[in-house]
Amino acid sequence: MEFWFSELHTGNVKLSVRIEKQLFSGESEYQRIDVFDSEEFGKFISLDGEIVFSEKDEFIYDEMVTHVPMAVHPHVKNVLIIGGGDGGVAKELLQYKSIESIDVVETDRMFVDVCREYFPEVACALDDERVKIHYDDGLRFLRNKKGIYDLIINDSTDPFGHTEGLFTKEFYGSCYNALKDDGIMVYQHGSPFYDEDEAACRSMHRKAFRSFPISRVYQAHIPTCPSGYWLFGFASKKYHPIKDFKPKEWNGLKIETWYYTTHLHMGAFMLPKYVEDLLEEEEQ
Amino acid sequence: MEFWFSELHTGNVKLSVRIEKQLFSGESEYQRIDVFDSEEFGKFISLDGEIVFSEKDEFIYDEMVTHVPMAVHPHVKNVLIIGGGDGGVAKELLQYKSIESIDVVETDRMFVDVCREYFPEVACALDDERVKIHYDDGLRFLRNKKGIYDLIINDSTDPFGHTEGLFTKEFYGSCYNALKDDGIMVYQHGSPFYDEDEAACRSMHRKAFRSFPISRVYQAHIPTCPSGYWLFGFASKKYHPIKDFKPKEWNGLKIETWYYTTHLHMGAFMLPKYVEDLLEEEEQ
Repeated sequence: MEFWFSELHTGNVKLSVRIEKQLFSGESEYQRIDVFDSEEFGKFISLDGEIVFSEKDEFIYDEMVTHVPMAVHPHVKNVLIIGGGDGGVAKELLQYKSIESIDVVETDRMFVDVCREYFPEVACALDDERVKIHYDDGLRFLRNKKGIYDLIINDSTDPFGHTEGLFTKEFYGSCYNALKDDGIMVYQHGSPFYDEDEAACRSMHRKAFRSFPISRVYQAHIPTCPSGYWLFGFASKKYHPIKDFKPKEWNGLKIETWYYTTHLHMGAFMLPKYVEDLLEEEEQ
Repeated sequence: MEFWFSELHTGNVKLSVRIEKQLFSGESEYQRIDVFDSEEFGKFISLDGEIVFSEKDEFIYDEMVTHVPMAVHPHVKNVLIIGGGDGGVAKELLQYKSIESIDVVETDRMFVDVCREYFPEVACALDDERVKIHYDDGLRFLRNKKGIYDLIINDSTDPFGHTEGLFTKEFYGSCYNALKDDGIMVYQHGSPFYDEDEAACRSMHRKAFRSFPISRVYQAHIPTCPSGYWLFGFASKKYHPIKDFKPKEWNGLKIETWYYTTHLHMGAFMLPKYVEDLLEEEEQ
């Protein structure tokens, strides 16, 4: 049997994954949610037809948004994850004993329920006593928060649909206000390769660059992302991702990883020329 | 009209590109050759159904196999390219005035002819007076060559089919012999992500590691490669890709690039943990 899931990365390129079985399909108030089982990527979940994470490559994303800021900021206690209802980022963060509280703000309760049922080994992180889920809109949740977080991770998916508000100038401003004086914000920066993604990538950098004193971009290779290449933003009030990087301290924590190393941390900020150029153009 | 070219990256994952028009299709003595025009990748050429290069992303590959060794070896004069009948690597190399001769060994004359017709802006490099094309099998060409090249770039495609001989232990030994005492060999190391590619990647590292005193692996993001992630091998008799790296000298040459920078050179050797681990396992 030929049974394929296809995702259009642009109107002219698609990635297809051979499916063993569809495990779930449902329509929440916000989006269509599907869970599939596949030989190559194991189980994966898609929202409105776009892969959000797969068992085979979620470690790359979760490690890169977590360990990069954690190896820079010397004393993270309170973290906010916007989106992140699958629990993957929370799970990585829980490895740090120093972290006291993790707020997860997720709009879609059905997404969390589906993750709990089909990805319990990841979603179990949401049951930890340090984690609190808030079923709310990220922007609304942030509005009255002032100086309480050491780290904000924007784990929400795309600058379209119901998460659109999480990619506006107002959103970056709200995150800035919700962070302490030495806080760091990490966010998904999209893929810079295809022309249609490049515009979103430029716009995001422009907003973060104007909202934070320090704004750098780093990269990872994630096979299920458009063109297999993904960028992350590191926006910070005080700490620089390289100058304030503490590899010795981080290695002393003995945290187990599959993708991140303190060596890779440095390399992740060394971007191809075409990416450097497009970011610099938005800094003018 | 829905008109798609699809390439199976494994039996269970495929990348598809929307086609505007098929420009050429032919069967040579060695392989099937097709040229397509597409909105997303421009013109591209496939051999036996696998994309070899596209107008949109060939710069990444060509720059990474060329500038990494050229920024390490202090005086490259004679270069051998095995495969490379499209002229892309030769074109990058010709930017260096110090290079005196470039031998291109290509088995398939039809491949060269097709590239000359459909990709003249790249293939024109083959007409340079410093470049000489030899229509021969790479392994046979190498057999009696002793100590004549400063740099060998193995640009051949896959360890299967008619280029299979270029991935054997004998081949690495022949390259070693054909290099001068301070020569460097750069080769395609494949993609480490999918299980079926991982085995080939391990085997390649094992052979190079046993044949050369210095053997390191570096990476690039190439969208049309399996999982968008590609590795290169740097096998060397004397120069280490980081310890003997000469960024100041290279930057002084004012060579124009889109992907490579001396900053990225360093980062390209900083590999994800899972890749480091699999390479180290083959070094035992």
